[in-house]
Amino acid sequence: MSSYGENLRLRIFGESHGPAVGMTLEGIPAGERIDREKLKAFMERRAPGRNGWSTPRKEPDEPEFLQGLSDEVSTGEALTAIIRNKDIRPGDYAHLRNIPRPGHADYTAWIKSGGKRATSGGGQFSGRMTAPLCLAGGICLQLLEREGIRVISRIAEIGGICDRGELLSSTAEKDFPVVDDARGEAMRDRIACVKAESDSLGGVIECKVLGLPAGLGGPLFEGLESRIAAIAFGIPAVKGIEFGEGFASARLTGSENNDAFVLRDGRVVTETNRCGGILGGISDGMPLCFRVAVKPTPSITKVQRSVDLETMRETEISVTGRHDPCIVPRAVPVVEAAAAIAIYDALLGQRREQE
Amino acid sequence: MSSYGENLRLRIFGESHGPAVGMTLEGIPAGERIDREKLKAFMERRAPGRNGWSTPRKEPDEPEFLQGLSDEVSTGEALTAIIRNKDIRPGDYAHLRNIPRPGHADYTAWIKSGGKRATSGGGQFSGRMTAPLCLAGGICLQLLEREGIRVISRIAEIGGICDRGELLSSTAEKDFPVVDDARGEAMRDRIACVKAESDSLGGVIECKVLGLPAGLGGPLFEGLESRIAAIAFGIPAVKGIEFGEGFASARLTGSENNDAFVLRDGRVVTETNRCGGILGGISDGMPLCFRVAVKPTPSITKVQRSVDLETMRETEISVTGRHDPCIVPRAVPVVEAAAAIAIYDALLGQRREQE
Amino acid sequence: MSSYGENLRLRIFGESHGPAVGMTLEGIPAGERIDREKLKAFMERRAPGRNGWSTPRKEPDEPEFLQGLSDEVSTGEALTAIIRNKDIRPGDYAHLRNIPRPGHADYTAWIKSGGKRATSGGGQFSGRMTAPLCLAGGICLQLLEREGIRVISRIAEIGGICDRGELLSSTAEKDFPVVDDARGEAMRDRIACVKAESDSLGGVIECKVLGLPAGLGGPLFEGLESRIAAIAFGIPAVKGIEFGEGFASARLTGSENNDAFVLRDGRVVTETNRCGGILGGISDGMPLCFRVAVKPTPSITKVQRSVDLETMRETEISVTGRHDPCIVPRAVPVVEAAAAIAIYDALLGQRREQE
Amino acid sequence: MSSYGENLRLRIFGESHGPAVGMTLEGIPAGERIDREKLKAFMERRAPGRNGWSTPRKEPDEPEFLQGLSDEVSTGEALTAIIRNKDIRPGDYAHLRNIPRPGHADYTAWIKSGGKRATSGGGQFSGRMTAPLCLAGGICLQLLEREGIRVISRIAEIGGICDRGELLSSTAEKDFPVVDDARGEAMRDRIACVKAESDSLGGVIECKVLGLPAGLGGPLFEGLESRIAAIAFGIPAVKGIEFGEGFASARLTGSENNDAFVLRDGRVVTETNRCGGILGGISDGMPLCFRVAVKPTPSITKVQRSVDLETMRETEISVTGRHDPCIVPRAVPVVEAAAAIAIYDALLGQRREQE
Repeated sequence: MSSYGENLRLRIFGESHGPAVGMTLEGIPAGERIDREKLKAFMERRAPGRNGWSTPRKEPDEPEFLQGLSDEVSTGEALTAIIRNKDIRPGDYAHLRNIPRPGHADYTAWIKSGGKRATSGGGQFSGRMTAPLCLAGGICLQLLEREGIRVISRIAEIGGICDRGELLSSTAEKDFPVVDDARGEAMRDRIACVKAESDSLGGVIECKVLGLPAGLGGPLFEGLESRIAAIAFGIPAVKGIEFGEGFASARLTGSENNDAFVLRDGRVVTETNRCGGILGGISDGMPLCFRVAVKPTPSITKVQRSVDLETMRETEISVTGRHDPCIVPRAVPVVEAAAAIAIYDALLGQRREQE
Repeated sequence: MSSYGENLRLRIFGESHGPAVGMTLEGIPAGERIDREKLKAFMERRAPGRNGWSTPRKEPDEPEFLQGLSDEVSTGEALTAIIRNKDIRPGDYAHLRNIPRPGHADYTAWIKSGGKRATSGGGQFSGRMTAPLCLAGGICLQLLEREGIRVISRIAEIGGICDRGELLSSTAEKDFPVVDDARGEAMRDRIACVKAESDSLGGVIECKVLGLPAGLGGPLFEGLESRIAAIAFGIPAVKGIEFGEGFASARLTGSENNDAFVLRDGRVVTETNRCGGILGGISDGMPLCFRVAVKPTPSITKVQRSVDLETMRETEISVTGRHDPCIVPRAVPVVEAAAAIAIYDALLGQRREQE
Repeated sequence: MSSYGENLRLRIFGESHGPAVGMTLEGIPAGERIDREKLKAFMERRAPGRNGWSTPRKEPDEPEFLQGLSDEVSTGEALTAIIRNKDIRPGDYAHLRNIPRPGHADYTAWIKSGGKRATSGGGQFSGRMTAPLCLAGGICLQLLEREGIRVISRIAEIGGICDRGELLSSTAEKDFPVVDDARGEAMRDRIACVKAESDSLGGVIECKVLGLPAGLGGPLFEGLESRIAAIAFGIPAVKGIEFGEGFASARLTGSENNDAFVLRDGRVVTETNRCGGILGGISDGMPLCFRVAVKPTPSITKVQRSVDLETMRETEISVTGRHDPCIVPRAVPVVEAAAAIAIYDALLGQRREQE
Repeated sequence: MSSYGENLRLRIFGESHGPAVGMTLEGIPAGERIDREKLKAFMERRAPGRNGWSTPRKEPDEPEFLQGLSDEVSTGEALTAIIRNKDIRPGDYAHLRNIPRPGHADYTAWIKSGGKRATSGGGQFSGRMTAPLCLAGGICLQLLEREGIRVISRIAEIGGICDRGELLSSTAEKDFPVVDDARGEAMRDRIACVKAESDSLGGVIECKVLGLPAGLGGPLFEGLESRIAAIAFGIPAVKGIEFGEGFASARLTGSENNDAFVLRDGRVVTETNRCGGILGGISDGMPLCFRVAVKPTPSITKVQRSVDLETMRETEISVTGRHDPCIVPRAVPVVEAAAAIAIYDALLGQRREQE
């Protein structure tokens, strides 16, 4: 079922081409003030139509709360909000009706519906569904900040161009969220170039959680890696995730990969952080680090081969409509939202065990 | 909470140093015959003590069913079984009592318990917990086979040595599960060599699900990637997962990465399979492919730096006891078990939507 | 958390004095046609403002579906709908702000909110929340009918006046849902009389499920009694439930209470039905019967004693505003809705065990 | 699925005629000491074989903990324990193999299993399953006591003989748990008499929760009535439940039934307690009161009519074997256990909302 969380419980509903999308978030304690302006600012980082590398589709993304907020303060009930879809142009997809776009969910959604459903280029598979995810995540980010926990992230790589430097502070204020702006400039050029070729790009996003106490998570399916991965793969286009050194650690020996425990100012810390702040599924008090691989936007105007599902003949397709040539910049706050939800869920779990 | 699944529900309980481990598996339909011999053979692939590269700890791993099986046939009730722990030697870990092993869950489990619990080198963080996981997975594998679905896997890489050739059939009969035995020989030599240096190795496991119908999974948190990742990270030492081209796809353009739809014998297939058989979180009918990164075994006899948590002084540690220099070969059936559970859960989900 | 069901999952959200109420219903199989007119007709049986014994508050109760319906056919996704609140007059309750109404949730809701919330005469405690319950139940009723299962009910008693005759067919078409209309007339007179005295009445509702196959439900918490009771007590004002002979069976001996198994036309049936169609938590193929006790509407204009929570002084209260002198007639379809949801949930469970 | 609870999660597994029964209880906070002697004493109140009115089957009911307890202190992991079945005599039921006992789950369990399963007089439908329920409940009772919350109960009625006096303190120390021992004597005589007639009796159990803070529970399915009813109907033979005045309140007017709010020593209390301490599904700080109806033991030696399911002919049956002529006395601690689990679950829920 379309839900996430153990202590929180997030449900996302609606469709990109229906009247509204929305979410239900159970488990937020009563008495928490939600800063609506801050939430709006966070959601705008995801919103489309802000610049040359994102779709011109415009959505004000103003949530209407149906329950759980009273005078901007949580009541302890399930937070429920809807976000109206305003800039709908299903006509944009009319030419795609029976021809699934390669790399997109059109074909599999059609199969799943038993062939009853048109491949309409949207529904629950649209990036639009990340709007309610960001709404829930934006709320969790505010609650985490009150505990001294911050979630930061950056574009680590786009089209083979890597960012430089270490991710130490938020890139949220930046127009293009990288550490090294020169590298960001190179990435933007690469996006513009590929867009001109009617093609698209993917990339890698790095995310860190700072200020996280040790002791969150647990063994087996309660592990932080399981919880973060489960929500991160809920973001359309994510195809891989690794924690700490990840795939690189598989090439090291135990003595190279283990992080030695040392004392710093009387506190136990690890000298290195190859494990990404997680041992045995539990946070160790060091920064939690992970990276997700985002595949290139499948919707491209370049001509591709496909099949007409009505006539069952091979054909070609050029996907017009409004699409990001590279979704990675807009996906950065979505990854932060996902991390915030997973971490706040684990934090509530820790409190409950210690009640 | 320590459970997995939406349509199935798996719970693993017990501790490696307690009287027994076990599992509860809800959702198996009534009337399914379980082949106990086949189940035993599958679980033996994971069992320790069989050769030079695994721990000499011996466990017969004979499950005792408390519920859900009647004359080897499922009753529709929750399958519940315990596996007695027989070869327990907690004395082996006495010297570690207050000194957490680097790279292991000792420190984080101690923190999570509020400092009340000795770092006893086991509990729910032990690889022993994968015995009930294999029990559940072995049952799911049998049920999947009846639907024409097979799960195969191999060691793709150990210590930087990659297997060669494509994974097309099961490696279960092999002593060392690789496609190219010469590469397997090289990996074994590398393990022996690193073991002699009191060190350990990690690696990468590749897993494929063949015969999977299109249409399994769903958008958002129902996606196959989310479901498989959530259980795969429940396997101790897994630090990364990628589907299809995974991180490599982040470096391609859309036109390079998209898999064109074509017709073969009147069926829609994709010409390539860079998406790993999953589009929009839903299977597309091609082989489902994923790879997991396994970090090197953290328990090594090589001297490492750590902290005595009682005296709060820095110290050194050499982990003796019975440990695998490389857990990867024994983890291969565990990855298959995890995949089988996730896939069978999704298959039940598909049936329910189509009821 | 505010949800119900194992195979279905129903969530109700919103508030009576907010912008909308709504529901999410997961688990409805794809491909089911929903008759919107029939659904509307069912919901109107609950709707207020239709006659002398119900509140004059008017709500068209038109659901807006956000997800899960495509051309009136279920898609297999979670059905999500909102119902706008139109006839809101929070001013009606201004005089009650700090004075909890006896018998109502005002005081306990205030306590639960930590004293932060005004006792506003509504929120999630309002009978308004039964509108989305009826929406979900109305859908389940249609699906059950396709399986030959019907849910019927009647007012068994109001203010001490009992209906006569056996409940054998639907009372849905009746203005006042009793078997014996003369008794119904007497009940109405009694309501009018008590209303004139500024007081209110409760009653008992009897519900039967006909055409139910044997084998639904299960032992322990899976039992039909547990499932039906859990949702029936979610209806405001229900204070008791009994199945079959219920409390009366506690006064019989085993030989008096047991229902003998006999053969009728080659089928096993019970000669009597004191168990109400449920043995060991599982349906036995006979009509399922239960009765719920509904307390009198707590909101009465008659002067009652209460406490001003602001000044913490004892005071008196007369509850004006729009209230039903007897909620029982409007609760009849709500009980049917609750039963339908519980039964359809159990039916899906049975199918899954037998897959 | 066979589980109970929102903040706790209880699962009961095993079968009366298999090797063991057991339970998993998730959600108990870490650091709670469990008094094993006290737990044993509580479980003995339910255990059979202690006197003339219960079955002579003997079970020491000694739980073996597999997880979650370390030196008698909870670790925060899921508490998991098994209780071996020792005094198994399936031969006792051989004569019943194809003839379902009237009033028992034999027939419905057989139907549910698709006719595959013998009507073996046990499995998960046996009263034996209340042993793990009492284990879980006994633990919750200890935790509640630390919060000043006590659960008390009594036999309110057996075979039409009612206990006298108000239930104000525990009857746990009594051999026969009533308030008025003379009435208890009369009930025992009645049981002996009916037993001599090869028949059985049912009864009513009253239960109160004292010291419960106001504010537990919630609207809709979160209500205390829903939660208590869901677990109470999990006890075999329970056929009805009512809270406060219950069915009697359905015959009162609002002004008669509402409990006036008054001040006592500066605290808001209700002058009467007809609502049984629950308003709008939430505790109001007064004693929580409910009553359950227990049907007479269906297994009687008196000859009854039934059907041979193999030959499909009508036949007669006399149930020999070891059975209680009246299960009510042994069900008293089971009702306390069920109430304790429901209340502790709600208490954890309240804490979480207020975190």
